[in-house]
Amino acid sequence: MERTEIRIYRNLMGENDRWAGKTRALCTEYGIAAWNLIGSPGSGKTELLVATLRALEGSGRYAVLEGDVETTRDAERIRETGVPVSQLLTDGACHLEAKLVHHAVRDLPYRELDALFVENVGNLVCPAEFDIGERGKIAVLSVTEGEDKAAKYPLLFREASAVVVTKSDLLPHVPFDMEAARRFIAEVHPRIPVFTVSALKGTGMDPWLAWLRGALRAEYDAGEADRA
Amino acid sequence: MERTEIRIYRNLMGENDRWAGKTRALCTEYGIAAWNLIGSPGSGKTELLVATLRALEGSGRYAVLEGDVETTRDAERIRETGVPVSQLLTDGACHLEAKLVHHAVRDLPYRELDALFVENVGNLVCPAEFDIGERGKIAVLSVTEGEDKAAKYPLLFREASAVVVTKSDLLPHVPFDMEAARRFIAEVHPRIPVFTVSALKGTGMDPWLAWLRGALRAEYDAGEADRA
Repeated sequence: MERTEIRIYRNLMGENDRWAGKTRALCTEYGIAAWNLIGSPGSGKTELLVATLRALEGSGRYAVLEGDVETTRDAERIRETGVPVSQLLTDGACHLEAKLVHHAVRDLPYRELDALFVENVGNLVCPAEFDIGERGKIAVLSVTEGEDKAAKYPLLFREASAVVVTKSDLLPHVPFDMEAARRFIAEVHPRIPVFTVSALKGTGMDPWLAWLRGALRAEYDAGEADRA
Repeated sequence: MERTEIRIYRNLMGENDRWAGKTRALCTEYGIAAWNLIGSPGSGKTELLVATLRALEGSGRYAVLEGDVETTRDAERIRETGVPVSQLLTDGACHLEAKLVHHAVRDLPYRELDALFVENVGNLVCPAEFDIGERGKIAVLSVTEGEDKAAKYPLLFREASAVVVTKSDLLPHVPFDMEAARRFIAEVHPRIPVFTVSALKGTGMDPWLAWLRGALRAEYDAGEADRA
């Protein structure tokens, strides 16, 4: 019997992981801290990014990839900060895939970047399942969503490097128990840093920015070690 | 050559539609209006359901199926209204599948029901893609999520029978432009009814309840015609 080539089909997740690996290798090579921001639609991811980029202005070189099902509205908001931004449209899909992210990163001036912020599609479930080659995931949770989200959607909170609780200016107006929220988060991920901010009012940003700067610094040092 | 049986694999969506069809046929047979509530995590679906069930109390027989990735927290809130409720856990999946819904409906006292409310997993993207045999989808959008959600996540708003804009008590505290929200919704679905409510404060509920009662009545009449 003739020996024929065996065709190998990898499952989509394997394919996704392969592209994520390429992005991770590229980020390591150039010392880029890549953050994957994940949260519900309307949880304030873009507002948090805008406030963060304005606070970081002058301290390094940043870029943003904005994931959405449709429209370029979020990328337009980021563009006003002067930071390079691309819009990734999933055309119906519920999460960003690593291949799309990788191509978008390749089109950025990545050799010069210190950090890359990727805002995933607004969704607490699916994006947490797909590695896009990030250094870490940031879970974004607004106080209007209720304190039990970490219990009901545990994967993201388990995987995240930090949680940013947004829209704290609304705390006097919503039934949100911050201690309970911290307890729910700690149950699925003990000792994860939790920051409470109002990006709109600019309050509570300093501890979050200090953590982020520390993480960027660590990324740079690790990159230096790898490159040495 | 021996003739062997040809195995047929249907795709999952076809399988899903088959189960949805069973549920729809059962609901038609017994005159049950089945509503599929879809919205972001923390958009106030459960709170809206609790307020709606309390307002409808005594006017008919209702039941609820609560979809979540994990926990029975929402079902416990519904149970306090005295309405029969089951919790559907997807164990990580981002939407309810029709098969699970059908089995849960079969275990309810469905012969006696006037309406069934199914609260889907908190997610603006995936649940809109999966028919569960409902009479219609209700899109739930809170004012804290921003007015552009219909543009960014159009499928749900295109498919829905009505939109309920929730948490209107927070309008004085959030940058939410109601006229813009209505415009974005009308762009993807002209003339869809849009109700603005605060389930927490009990305001704005009457137009929504009137629409729902009208829809329940229409369902009953259609069922009578079918059964005649």
